[in-house]
Amino acid sequence: MERTAYRLADIVARFGGQVMGDADTRVQQIGTLEHATAGQIAFLANAKYRSQLEGSKASAVILSRADVDATGLPRIVCDNPYSYFARLSAFLNPLARYVPGVHPSAIIGKDVQISAQAYIGPLVTIGDGAVIGEGAVVMAGCCIGEGVTLGRNTRLYPRVTIYHGCLIGSDVIVHSGAVIGADGFGIAMDEGRWLKIPQIGRVVIGDHVEIGANTTIDRGALDDTVIEEGAKLDNQIQVAHNVRIGAHTAIAGCVGIAGSATIGKYCRIGGSAGILGHLQIADNVEVASFTLVGKSISEPGSYAGIYPFSKNDEWRNNAVHLRHLGDLVKRVKALEKEIATLKGEKV
Amino acid sequence: MERTAYRLADIVARFGGQVMGDADTRVQQIGTLEHATAGQIAFLANAKYRSQLEGSKASAVILSRADVDATGLPRIVCDNPYSYFARLSAFLNPLARYVPGVHPSAIIGKDVQISAQAYIGPLVTIGDGAVIGEGAVVMAGCCIGEGVTLGRNTRLYPRVTIYHGCLIGSDVIVHSGAVIGADGFGIAMDEGRWLKIPQIGRVVIGDHVEIGANTTIDRGALDDTVIEEGAKLDNQIQVAHNVRIGAHTAIAGCVGIAGSATIGKYCRIGGSAGILGHLQIADNVEVASFTLVGKSISEPGSYAGIYPFSKNDEWRNNAVHLRHLGDLVKRVKALEKEIATLKGEKV
Amino acid sequence: MERTAYRLADIVARFGGQVMGDADTRVQQIGTLEHATAGQIAFLANAKYRSQLEGSKASAVILSRADVDATGLPRIVCDNPYSYFARLSAFLNPLARYVPGVHPSAIIGKDVQISAQAYIGPLVTIGDGAVIGEGAVVMAGCCIGEGVTLGRNTRLYPRVTIYHGCLIGSDVIVHSGAVIGADGFGIAMDEGRWLKIPQIGRVVIGDHVEIGANTTIDRGALDDTVIEEGAKLDNQIQVAHNVRIGAHTAIAGCVGIAGSATIGKYCRIGGSAGILGHLQIADNVEVASFTLVGKSISEPGSYAGIYPFSKNDEWRNNAVHLRHLGDLVKRVKALEKEIATLKGEKV
Repeated sequence: MERTAYRLADIVARFGGQVMGDADTRVQQIGTLEHATAGQIAFLANAKYRSQLEGSKASAVILSRADVDATGLPRIVCDNPYSYFARLSAFLNPLARYVPGVHPSAIIGKDVQISAQAYIGPLVTIGDGAVIGEGAVVMAGCCIGEGVTLGRNTRLYPRVTIYHGCLIGSDVIVHSGAVIGADGFGIAMDEGRWLKIPQIGRVVIGDHVEIGANTTIDRGALDDTVIEEGAKLDNQIQVAHNVRIGAHTAIAGCVGIAGSATIGKYCRIGGSAGILGHLQIADNVEVASFTLVGKSISEPGSYAGIYPFSKNDEWRNNAVHLRHLGDLVKRVKALEKEIATLKGEKV
Repeated sequence: MERTAYRLADIVARFGGQVMGDADTRVQQIGTLEHATAGQIAFLANAKYRSQLEGSKASAVILSRADVDATGLPRIVCDNPYSYFARLSAFLNPLARYVPGVHPSAIIGKDVQISAQAYIGPLVTIGDGAVIGEGAVVMAGCCIGEGVTLGRNTRLYPRVTIYHGCLIGSDVIVHSGAVIGADGFGIAMDEGRWLKIPQIGRVVIGDHVEIGANTTIDRGALDDTVIEEGAKLDNQIQVAHNVRIGAHTAIAGCVGIAGSATIGKYCRIGGSAGILGHLQIADNVEVASFTLVGKSISEPGSYAGIYPFSKNDEWRNNAVHLRHLGDLVKRVKALEKEIATLKGEKV
Repeated sequence: MERTAYRLADIVARFGGQVMGDADTRVQQIGTLEHATAGQIAFLANAKYRSQLEGSKASAVILSRADVDATGLPRIVCDNPYSYFARLSAFLNPLARYVPGVHPSAIIGKDVQISAQAYIGPLVTIGDGAVIGEGAVVMAGCCIGEGVTLGRNTRLYPRVTIYHGCLIGSDVIVHSGAVIGADGFGIAMDEGRWLKIPQIGRVVIGDHVEIGANTTIDRGALDDTVIEEGAKLDNQIQVAHNVRIGAHTAIAGCVGIAGSATIGKYCRIGGSAGILGHLQIADNVEVASFTLVGKSISEPGSYAGIYPFSKNDEWRNNAVHLRHLGDLVKRVKALEKEIATLKGEKV
């Protein structure tokens, strides 16, 4: 498509910051310092990439006051280049528009309310009594269960499933393959067989939440599973029944969160981390990738528990002793006693 | 929907146990001690929640003889409150019923046998020669391959894929996004390129198995991949080719099981655990979350291998020494020798 | 279906190797030594299964010169029995053929180019401007975004999603539930809220790549995410934005690869391993299952970092000391000093 080019002067008028160099420089897209071409604006948000300024073919650069003299390129100086870049990029790359209406191949149930301003794509199924808000976009192949509510401007990419009764807020984005509201893993052993426990809670998702591809969020067993507003979930995350994820918490890919865990606001959970069931995690907690949180965390801060990797044989030679670490500690204690005795004897 | 209310007297007549307090108390739904409202019955299965009895708004409670005096509420006393709750909840919350028939938008292949008592939802595809049993429910967007057999009362939630030739038992539940029978990861290196090894086995799933959302179970390379009856698999589990999972084994979310591993009956595998290929695991083995089982387990019991988490800098200060644990052990041994010598000299 | 039987003589004429025993022996399928029946040919690629030769009901066996005398069965002797088996199995089990054409239930956008030799299955959606190559197979329920290109003979199993603009090479196989080109996890914190960073790169996949069920590969933030030719990805792998995976690298199930990581050629990554963002991994690196690669690897070789599992209480008694490993090292150092002093005093 034909892109519009904007003058740096226009950009700072809209987003703030200050132009250094030719304010009439026009840009139409964002690029990396390394690969930007003419007509693109790059950004420097991390000092370690400063060397890339040299030789960058970008027409302009977004950077902080600290780096203002690091290049002769036309530039926009601002406090937070990364969020400035994010805002500018969102302006230059708006979400694809969809003409409102229901595709004739969609299968719509009884008593469904679909806003005249919503888009329902091909081969979508919507169960009885669902409510689809203004500006909502439901792409090809999505399956919306009975009585589901989708808020305003919420966008489901192709092949999302939402089970019956779930409540999805406004301005939510759900990526392809995500499954919201499947049964939680509730079973009870009874005379040698597992009994299935009906999962009668819902999933309730707040506004401005984003959910990644193939992520699964189970419905509550009795009460609801809740994702608070502004939380951001990456791909292939498993959220078990009755979990609560606090507002504006960001969770990287492949994390597993066990039943009834409660995670605070503004937390950051690294990729492939795990959180055991029935734990409480305070606000502003950061968990490293690959770390299992095995007990509640009441203090904000950064936590980790990762086995350091090394060459295979080196790892083997060290790891074997982990099975005897307790004995080693006893042996050291014994040595300390012996030394004390030897010294004592010399008195 | 309008729910029926049942007297406690009716409930014990059906499920056993003993009523204390007003046997005419009517309940129509299950609730938690914390959030139950009038008309709901809660349960106490774990002493640590006993304090929630006080102030619970439940109309009645299910509890064990040990807790019989812990509340004045009308109550049902039984041996196993949790399984009692499970059975009562299943009675109060039966699976949604589907009117038998094939939705006109479904695409049905040649020589397909569909029971007149089965439900085939919208936009389902069924390959040639498939057999769909009595009472089976195949929800929107499922893709059933050629020659697949679905047993009686088996239920596929939306967007399940079953590849050709797989055999699914009766009373099986498969949740949305699950993929059963995709090719196993079989490759052979040949002159710098990977050759694909055809995966000609099937997946065979026993009766009363439940499979979670976005779980994947690969078909066998030559022989079959087998999930025995009553096994329960949570979401996002990966089961590789030629794995065998024993009857009534329960596996939590995000577990990965490598090729040709054999897991016994009544095992419990914790979330995000892993099991390497070609291992045997005995019956009644419990594996903790986040634990990699790297060799066969012949003894029943509980096993774990988890790196304990801590504050990030504390973790760092300790973990660095793991790369030298072997040396540390040598140093301790040397010290023990020196001490022995010093003591000897004093004789 | 009716299978053709081939004489061992015909097979070696086609694939090389040497027949020992009756060259007129006919086989029509591959089997394992353990379960092969008459008319099947088994293979011995690993000495530890040699004992299975005895009593095998296979009509013939593929094995190496080293094992030539290990059985009296008719046999094919070759240098690499495993790749020989792979080639023969591919010959005996060709990919299912699909009659070219577009199923009437498919929804095709504007300006789409579909080769007359391609197959588009039922309930597929294809966005405007997509290009589908000769011999391509797109099975039921796939969603192909606008402007996507699928190369020759590329095969998508049911319910694959490919987002707009992605470029898929030739002879690629993508299994059910995979999602290619969803937004990378790009967010910037700004005054207490996460701003979404538009993901405007693509996913570019080379020829002869295979991608497993429910694997997710995110589109690049600004530049592209790249999977080079011949790479093989198993199920439920998460590939974040701007990752590059080198040619002929094989990755087992459940691996997570964080943003902008670069993995070399001919690497092998074990199941459930993890690779942190912005790392470089050299060619020919092997990473063990369950290992987190936390810094770049410049040397080929095998690497691991796995906590060894043991009985639960044994693990507990040892693991508790990991939180004090630094102190233990200090105590040992102190002891070494004391001993040195004591010895000195005796001089």
